[in-house]
Amino acid sequence: MNKINNSIKACYINCTLKKSPNPSHTEGLMHLSMDIMDRLGVYYDYFRFVDYNVPPGVQKDMTDHGYRSDGFIKIKKSILDADILIIGTPIWLGEKSSECVKLIERLYGLSGMTNEKGQYLYYGKVGGCIITGNEDGAKHVAMSTLYALQHIGYTIPPQADAAWLGEVGPGPSYLDEESGAKDNSFTNRNITFMTYNLLHLASMLKGNNGLPNLGNNAEAWTEGERWEFKKNRN
Amino acid sequence: MNKINNSIKACYINCTLKKSPNPSHTEGLMHLSMDIMDRLGVYYDYFRFVDYNVPPGVQKDMTDHGYRSDGFIKIKKSILDADILIIGTPIWLGEKSSECVKLIERLYGLSGMTNEKGQYLYYGKVGGCIITGNEDGAKHVAMSTLYALQHIGYTIPPQADAAWLGEVGPGPSYLDEESGAKDNSFTNRNITFMTYNLLHLASMLKGNNGLPNLGNNAEAWTEGERWEFKKNRN
Amino acid sequence: MNKINNSIKACYINCTLKKSPNPSHTEGLMHLSMDIMDRLGVYYDYFRFVDYNVPPGVQKDMTDHGYRSDGFIKIKKSILDADILIIGTPIWLGEKSSECVKLIERLYGLSGMTNEKGQYLYYGKVGGCIITGNEDGAKHVAMSTLYALQHIGYTIPPQADAAWLGEVGPGPSYLDEESGAKDNSFTNRNITFMTYNLLHLASMLKGNNGLPNLGNNAEAWTEGERWEFKKNRN
Amino acid sequence: MNKINNSIKACYINCTLKKSPNPSHTEGLMHLSMDIMDRLGVYYDYFRFVDYNVPPGVQKDMTDHGYRSDGFIKIKKSILDADILIIGTPIWLGEKSSECVKLIERLYGLSGMTNEKGQYLYYGKVGGCIITGNEDGAKHVAMSTLYALQHIGYTIPPQADAAWLGEVGPGPSYLDEESGAKDNSFTNRNITFMTYNLLHLASMLKGNNGLPNLGNNAEAWTEGERWEFKKNRN
Repeated sequence: MNKINNSIKACYINCTLKKSPNPSHTEGLMHLSMDIMDRLGVYYDYFRFVDYNVPPGVQKDMTDHGYRSDGFIKIKKSILDADILIIGTPIWLGEKSSECVKLIERLYGLSGMTNEKGQYLYYGKVGGCIITGNEDGAKHVAMSTLYALQHIGYTIPPQADAAWLGEVGPGPSYLDEESGAKDNSFTNRNITFMTYNLLHLASMLKGNNGLPNLGNNAEAWTEGERWEFKKNRN
Repeated sequence: MNKINNSIKACYINCTLKKSPNPSHTEGLMHLSMDIMDRLGVYYDYFRFVDYNVPPGVQKDMTDHGYRSDGFIKIKKSILDADILIIGTPIWLGEKSSECVKLIERLYGLSGMTNEKGQYLYYGKVGGCIITGNEDGAKHVAMSTLYALQHIGYTIPPQADAAWLGEVGPGPSYLDEESGAKDNSFTNRNITFMTYNLLHLASMLKGNNGLPNLGNNAEAWTEGERWEFKKNRN
Repeated sequence: MNKINNSIKACYINCTLKKSPNPSHTEGLMHLSMDIMDRLGVYYDYFRFVDYNVPPGVQKDMTDHGYRSDGFIKIKKSILDADILIIGTPIWLGEKSSECVKLIERLYGLSGMTNEKGQYLYYGKVGGCIITGNEDGAKHVAMSTLYALQHIGYTIPPQADAAWLGEVGPGPSYLDEESGAKDNSFTNRNITFMTYNLLHLASMLKGNNGLPNLGNNAEAWTEGERWEFKKNRN
Repeated sequence: MNKINNSIKACYINCTLKKSPNPSHTEGLMHLSMDIMDRLGVYYDYFRFVDYNVPPGVQKDMTDHGYRSDGFIKIKKSILDADILIIGTPIWLGEKSSECVKLIERLYGLSGMTNEKGQYLYYGKVGGCIITGNEDGAKHVAMSTLYALQHIGYTIPPQADAAWLGEVGPGPSYLDEESGAKDNSFTNRNITFMTYNLLHLASMLKGNNGLPNLGNNAEAWTEGERWEFKKNRN
């Protein structure tokens, strides 16, 4: 149980606003985590979300709602296959990118579905996030991103976010040599702890076949099951 | 492994602004979760934070910093003994209470300490939150509270927050009969799922003696260990 | 000075995720404010952002960055012509829509430009926001939206946000008859106060030719002017 | 109208967690703004909130609610006398301090009162904030603080927040020489622009005897006045 289960799969999604092949600072930081996965022999997919022309919306398939194609279909498959989801995003004006919000809306569009145990679809999976910005906003972005993930069913391990930020005000970005960002020991430690914690918790959940469905079976609740819950009598 | 380990202990802290014996709506909602714990035979402590005259600050013991007494000492013992921490808070102007922020500051004041495995102190514990308000702000408060908990080492299970809110604008509060809040099925479901998910994850972590310390041992990192992390070479 | 200057222009942008001609609850609420403008003889434009295929990014014209067209060009003209900007957005998972975030990114993409007084482009304009959701998140969305507006140069009058939210949990939306939302006196009052406060402050700023540029002239600062600022000497 | 009205008064409140005479980094940054006020001949008060033993709560006078004294009474007088309120706060775990939240709760406790024009009490006043932290969170803290101020009646000028933050991770604070913070041109510019913008808008509002009370008179609304508002007919 103390070992990392390397049948685990991860899915990394980079929500930069810049299409390929423009360099992405966020991708630069995400590589540190993917490299650890490589060395541990853990399989992962990587997507740059903006390259996939994903329509906005909260429906399962947006081609039913006026869009000619829906690039989320392919990404969705990887997300649902994976045990770990890691969302990367830049910060603009102190917030996660609009591509990141769109990704969360699309994830949310599937969140009413249930697994074979009657639990919401993302139960048993774990989530984290990686953030880059010039100067401010990493915790704000992380709190909102991790909240969304736990809300739809992901488990969040300790210290599940890692970020790089420079001093307040305009300045070099993560990949710019003059930022010295690659030597930031705090960022490097956090991305290491995040990656291992995601793997430990995913291994633990996989070894237990996810969370038991006592007390969290959405289908059973709908049918009237209440387990040890009783309404407030006061 | 599918059973709830009932040697587990929980700690509930209510961050209402109202001193005892004034009724607390937040306490009213917290009781639903505590009642489930009672029926499952799980031990818990309950504190109304504002009754303990806890000084603000981020030091371990504020009597060393100009305060005559420090009510956090007793609460801290329970928090560190417990496997589960559940923070309750009302919402004022869309935010968690100042008592709740003070509690988080005091938790943070201990967060640099490490356990016997070299991990930060709260590793292996799980956290959730319970929120009441007239009309708005539960998700905002939850994202900030749960973020703080995972940041200092807590694991956050799926759907680890439960709340009651009325329609926008002034109106009755949770315990007021005319609110009909006790019959809100969404709130009742969420507090049930939250309570069981906290118990499942705490049982799983306890059964595994917490998280393995591979890749997240803060003491080892300080001494130079890097596991499979390597600095960015680009 | 106590009269509303009706040479004032307003620009309303609805950031619903639903393309026309789908009904938009947010539009329903925005109509209350636009109707006041109509009765006062104030000119305004209205845009449903998602209909304009606006590319994500923080550049002035995204056709220079790999996109075939950029629907923001037309909207931008109206924003820059107007004295008042009112952003409407729905709430998804407690957050403003991805279309709303994209709009803010595009506004931000122009924010380094200066007016004829050397101030940032949006100085002298006023901003507000209108929000609808099923159940939670209006203040959280407003704080982030209004912050972005003041950060790039807008002035924010008192009570510059109005919203409708139902009780916590799934339920009817703003335009659904069973919500009773149109009779919510709190929402109706807030949209009234917001609309008049935007008009009063825009009238006042217009009557003064915007804000004086003493102490906030970005071009002068760059050239070394410091007015009464002196560096910290301690 | 283009001149700063120097009968204007400002009130600065520092929400550091550290009691006097401990040095406060936030106070260090606030001094830059107060020094501009001094040179312009504008009167201001300065309070270190934590020194006043202010009880938590949302009542006007907490001595009626179980507290022996209420240090807010004196501070309140200065706030209500002043045309400008500037809140300073440090950042802990990405959030404003618990003292700052307590201050906002106490401000909120008075917010239902009205002025001689029937408007909420803080109408006609302007607000801003000053923030210091090691590494992250200034925009997050500012959005929440400025939101609260506009919600209760303050007008927010452009760029009404100023902050200093270092690079991500632990490191020197604002007053520490090795931070180089006093030479940060972005911080210095923002504190200058903030101070002048507060003065310009306060002068303009004072010259107009506040905001006209057409469409925002809370007492009149309660008595049934609706101006040009009409209920949604759809």
